[in-house]
Amino acid sequence: MSEFQELKEIAYRSNMRLPELGLVLFTFGNASTADHKREVFAIKPSGVPYDELKVDDIVIVDFNGNVVEGDMRPSSDTETHAVLYKHWENIGGIVHTHSTYGTAWAQAQKDIPIMGTTHADHLTHDIPCAPPMSDEMIEGDYEEQTGHQIINALDARELSYEEVEMILVGNHAPFTWGKTAEKAVYNSAVLEEVAKMTYLARQINPDAPRLKDTLIKKHWERKHGDDAYYGQEN
Amino acid sequence: MSEFQELKEIAYRSNMRLPELGLVLFTFGNASTADHKREVFAIKPSGVPYDELKVDDIVIVDFNGNVVEGDMRPSSDTETHAVLYKHWENIGGIVHTHSTYGTAWAQAQKDIPIMGTTHADHLTHDIPCAPPMSDEMIEGDYEEQTGHQIINALDARELSYEEVEMILVGNHAPFTWGKTAEKAVYNSAVLEEVAKMTYLARQINPDAPRLKDTLIKKHWERKHGDDAYYGQEN
Amino acid sequence: MSEFQELKEIAYRSNMRLPELGLVLFTFGNASTADHKREVFAIKPSGVPYDELKVDDIVIVDFNGNVVEGDMRPSSDTETHAVLYKHWENIGGIVHTHSTYGTAWAQAQKDIPIMGTTHADHLTHDIPCAPPMSDEMIEGDYEEQTGHQIINALDARELSYEEVEMILVGNHAPFTWGKTAEKAVYNSAVLEEVAKMTYLARQINPDAPRLKDTLIKKHWERKHGDDAYYGQEN
Amino acid sequence: MSEFQELKEIAYRSNMRLPELGLVLFTFGNASTADHKREVFAIKPSGVPYDELKVDDIVIVDFNGNVVEGDMRPSSDTETHAVLYKHWENIGGIVHTHSTYGTAWAQAQKDIPIMGTTHADHLTHDIPCAPPMSDEMIEGDYEEQTGHQIINALDARELSYEEVEMILVGNHAPFTWGKTAEKAVYNSAVLEEVAKMTYLARQINPDAPRLKDTLIKKHWERKHGDDAYYGQEN
Repeated sequence: MSEFQELKEIAYRSNMRLPELGLVLFTFGNASTADHKREVFAIKPSGVPYDELKVDDIVIVDFNGNVVEGDMRPSSDTETHAVLYKHWENIGGIVHTHSTYGTAWAQAQKDIPIMGTTHADHLTHDIPCAPPMSDEMIEGDYEEQTGHQIINALDARELSYEEVEMILVGNHAPFTWGKTAEKAVYNSAVLEEVAKMTYLARQINPDAPRLKDTLIKKHWERKHGDDAYYGQEN
Repeated sequence: MSEFQELKEIAYRSNMRLPELGLVLFTFGNASTADHKREVFAIKPSGVPYDELKVDDIVIVDFNGNVVEGDMRPSSDTETHAVLYKHWENIGGIVHTHSTYGTAWAQAQKDIPIMGTTHADHLTHDIPCAPPMSDEMIEGDYEEQTGHQIINALDARELSYEEVEMILVGNHAPFTWGKTAEKAVYNSAVLEEVAKMTYLARQINPDAPRLKDTLIKKHWERKHGDDAYYGQEN
Repeated sequence: MSEFQELKEIAYRSNMRLPELGLVLFTFGNASTADHKREVFAIKPSGVPYDELKVDDIVIVDFNGNVVEGDMRPSSDTETHAVLYKHWENIGGIVHTHSTYGTAWAQAQKDIPIMGTTHADHLTHDIPCAPPMSDEMIEGDYEEQTGHQIINALDARELSYEEVEMILVGNHAPFTWGKTAEKAVYNSAVLEEVAKMTYLARQINPDAPRLKDTLIKKHWERKHGDDAYYGQEN
Repeated sequence: MSEFQELKEIAYRSNMRLPELGLVLFTFGNASTADHKREVFAIKPSGVPYDELKVDDIVIVDFNGNVVEGDMRPSSDTETHAVLYKHWENIGGIVHTHSTYGTAWAQAQKDIPIMGTTHADHLTHDIPCAPPMSDEMIEGDYEEQTGHQIINALDARELSYEEVEMILVGNHAPFTWGKTAEKAVYNSAVLEEVAKMTYLARQINPDAPRLKDTLIKKHWERKHGDDAYYGQEN
């Protein structure tokens, strides 16, 4: 049995959740999970349909994007995952989808404004839309540069990856992450639902304001603050 | 066996109906049911996924929000339920969801105008959207104040909670109630469907008028008036 | 066994198709089927949820709206069905739903313009939206008057009920009919799909023209004309 | 056993995928697969509901539209398929649907602009909308002329059918094709998803630009270029 068996199983389950949650069509998405001590992550193989995917197909890759174990070619987005794991030591999972509403906002090149408590329960900022990449970045090592584009977009807005666990890459689609792969998957579903709600709210009332600061703070803190009282574990 | 067993089972079934009806994602919602004689209600525990929820997880709480029975922390919205049960003696159930279209109207800070008979079959007024709460209310006992905001919004419009069994809390999401928990769940699904229909009707024709008074009255009375003839029980 | 057993079974199956096709929420709809020789029709009982409906619950009613057989109260829309069967001798089934997109167009008080071949495969005219009823009609025998409103709306446009098998009642919702109850159910699903497509087409291009006459004629005639060649039975 | 058994089975499976993918309502669609050596294709019979379709119902037709084997009448769109197979020697499958969002764009008579990488992963051009056909074409051999309209629309834009495997026929609906029937079915689902995403993106931001050329080229080439690295087979 592989020394990475557990990592592969987590990656497998996380990938299989994406079609269950209605977040991917065909092969348009991938999930990974990392072991920072060993500096490796487990990721979906490229172009394999979810209903044919097996645990043993999962590929183990190091943080420089080199395959460590596995017979298949890893996801074409592997370099993006590698860059993020290398730079962000406290994330255990990354998910990329082309979910419908999230991708529509990315194509519109617009941040998703924070307009309700559903959003504030998960982050206190607009969901950022990174600008489309420069021609140099696209023509260079594209997937690696996508990782840098994500990191740079958070830096430019002075946002922490530990507080903002989701982003849109302009003209492309969403990426999410989290302490675990399960949390990254959860964040992908939250992003899609918030993208849909906010789309509809703007259609109903184009002038509707952003959520007020006190309400943003309240909803964030009751779930994530020092005195959080949501859930069973605080 | 708990003296509250029946109450817990009703609360359990009502909560489980919410994902079945497509009204909640993950843990974004809760249902409760009250026993006004004993001044207690049964409510979902906080943050527990629906597919893991068990009857015994349901928490019994009194009308001041104190836990009477149960090992888990009750829903973070428990105080809102408590305030409503305390003030409205004729309701047996309350439901809170972040259903997509209803929440979009709440984020748009707009009442849902009465534009069709589907709406008039259930209430004779626009579905009110309570204004976002004041900073004082948010920074105070937020969930308790949410209950007061709901009561105040009905009072300000001179609406009876026995006739209008649903409301949007501005920037937040819908709350519904009814004589039974089953009716409160039903009202949540009706609100979501009416929210979607009316959204679409306004997109098709922004100038479409509200429903005329004779039609509002007719549809309400054939279901709820003294000479109602809808259903098998009048 | 009832002398109307077959009629009841057809009505039962037709009603059960409505939730299967996603056309009704809770009890918001009803289907009936008529026997013109005996001048009776079989219709859903009022307010009974579809998942509790049984063949024996179906009510037999004559063309004046009087119950002939059955223990339950018939649908509150029974008089509308009765009027249509009485006036239109060549229809064998009627369906009423509050399907989402069809109802949105009814609430918008707009005809659904014929903009594509999907529409022309089924009728050669815009799907008419009958104007909301007068106060006198509403305050009189409302459901009977709804039938007359439908008949009058077709007459005012010089449309034949044998060619146009569907209508919207303004501020209310769709009614469809056909030679059989199965066809009426089919028409309800077609109306909902066309209502959605045309809604979307208008959002994409508010100036998109109606379908040209040659294309309307071609698609109608290949399915319904003297030289029809669609399907296996012409 | 028929000498065309394998062809029939491929056509059967391809047709059955259409309702599974949510691309057809009732009988509104058809898939075929060709054997260019024998100059025949296997296609769905006309007007047969998918849940009643059997392998043996599939009809074998030659490239002039004449039935070679089968007891049923072939799809009313058979001549369109025949023309495309006759002109395009490298396609093995064709699919026609009235999928909701794709058909809405066709009714709007608009090309679907290339606005994101989901689109560029599959083709480097806007998805063309062929103009509605002339009265002469409609009144002539309509289905054969539909094939010519598709070929002419690609020619007029100097597009290769091997690069652009999908089109909208104005006022009508989508047609897709590919090296295999499986690929043609896949393309139908991709077209519908891209049609929905781009609809939403334009609603969010009517001024959102088309995808930049470097990004179009990058996404196309990583999947389809000489140095493609997407999937397991390059």
